[in-house]
Amino acid sequence: MTNPVAVEKGILDANGRAAAELRERLRGGRVYMLNLMSGAGAGKTSLLVRTLSRLRGRWRVGAVAGDLETRRDEERLRAAGVPVTQINTHGACHLEADAVAAALEEIRWRDLDAVVVENVGNLVCPAEFDIGETDRAMLLSVAEGHDKPAKYPLMFSESRALVLNKIDLLPHTDFDEAAALRDVRALNPAIEVFRTSVRTGEGVERWCGWVDGRIRAAKA
Amino acid sequence: MTNPVAVEKGILDANGRAAAELRERLRGGRVYMLNLMSGAGAGKTSLLVRTLSRLRGRWRVGAVAGDLETRRDEERLRAAGVPVTQINTHGACHLEADAVAAALEEIRWRDLDAVVVENVGNLVCPAEFDIGETDRAMLLSVAEGHDKPAKYPLMFSESRALVLNKIDLLPHTDFDEAAALRDVRALNPAIEVFRTSVRTGEGVERWCGWVDGRIRAAKA
Repeated sequence: MTNPVAVEKGILDANGRAAAELRERLRGGRVYMLNLMSGAGAGKTSLLVRTLSRLRGRWRVGAVAGDLETRRDEERLRAAGVPVTQINTHGACHLEADAVAAALEEIRWRDLDAVVVENVGNLVCPAEFDIGETDRAMLLSVAEGHDKPAKYPLMFSESRALVLNKIDLLPHTDFDEAAALRDVRALNPAIEVFRTSVRTGEGVERWCGWVDGRIRAAKA
Repeated sequence: MTNPVAVEKGILDANGRAAAELRERLRGGRVYMLNLMSGAGAGKTSLLVRTLSRLRGRWRVGAVAGDLETRRDEERLRAAGVPVTQINTHGACHLEADAVAAALEEIRWRDLDAVVVENVGNLVCPAEFDIGETDRAMLLSVAEGHDKPAKYPLMFSESRALVLNKIDLLPHTDFDEAAALRDVRALNPAIEVFRTSVRTGEGVERWCGWVDGRIRAAKA
């Protein structure tokens, strides 16, 4: 049988090189790229529509949506009125740097200040693949359960910011926020945590302020 | 660069052979195996504790929990009072047949009537890997959103039963149940659908009745 570990290592190395090249090109152009990750259904697309709508008055922003098969995320993101394109992975559970680089050409990244890439919805694979981003951020919905940081540690370890979303559902779930945050901080003491409900709008402004600051830092 | 598609094909073929062998052994022993799949946080472990507790009066049942790193699911499943073991995939997003076959030896499958395997939580990869199961079933939590069948079609296409879970959250979400079920039935007209809230217990009995019937069919 083929050794999947050795093979995966090979893929990661080639992807790592492509990611490093893309990161260098973005840095040269002073373009910020955020890799937004989460499990399926945590609210990435909804948060992104709100975030892009908020930022487009200040910055030239664009978006890339990763998905297995449909163009639904791209259609929803168009509502934000910014350049957007979709990558269909045709079954693959993550994005890689080559596909992201090609998508950035489609939305003419050199004319932008910032791009947000919505990764494929899944708590496992996206965290294993560098796509050349400036920062990684992730969402966890309170409906997913407070055991997720301990069970899926890599994404929490690798993210600069965590958005705890759907907090309007807290009274209706058994989510133990203190336990979740304890596990998150054990994995990643420096992580910035945002509490949001995209549905009610709570906390979204503070999150957008953080993204705004990160774009400003990349332009400096 | 290595061709990941060709390599994945090689892995799938080796896994497919291992799965076919395991399925044949289980059939010979008249042991039913259910492969339970879902995204992270849809409620697999909670449903499984309830299901195993309900079935153990009638059948000799066991469980295998797949997870990336922790043994938390195994610990929770022990509450059901049945033989259980855990497979840690150390980062891999799905279970494969060889690891399942080894886990079945640990729980002495030849002395059982049925085994439920809780796959790794993620809507993408588990559906791509045959583990030798008799049936596949999946959970979708209403908190994950009604667009998931269209966006992650493979798991819905391949499952014999769908458990729509956390229906107690329906009044607090924008989940469009009719739209979700329309997409599910377009992918898989024969799928059995169960509406449950493991939290309140609603619908769990009907689901357990279905599993009971499937075990009885495998023993006939």
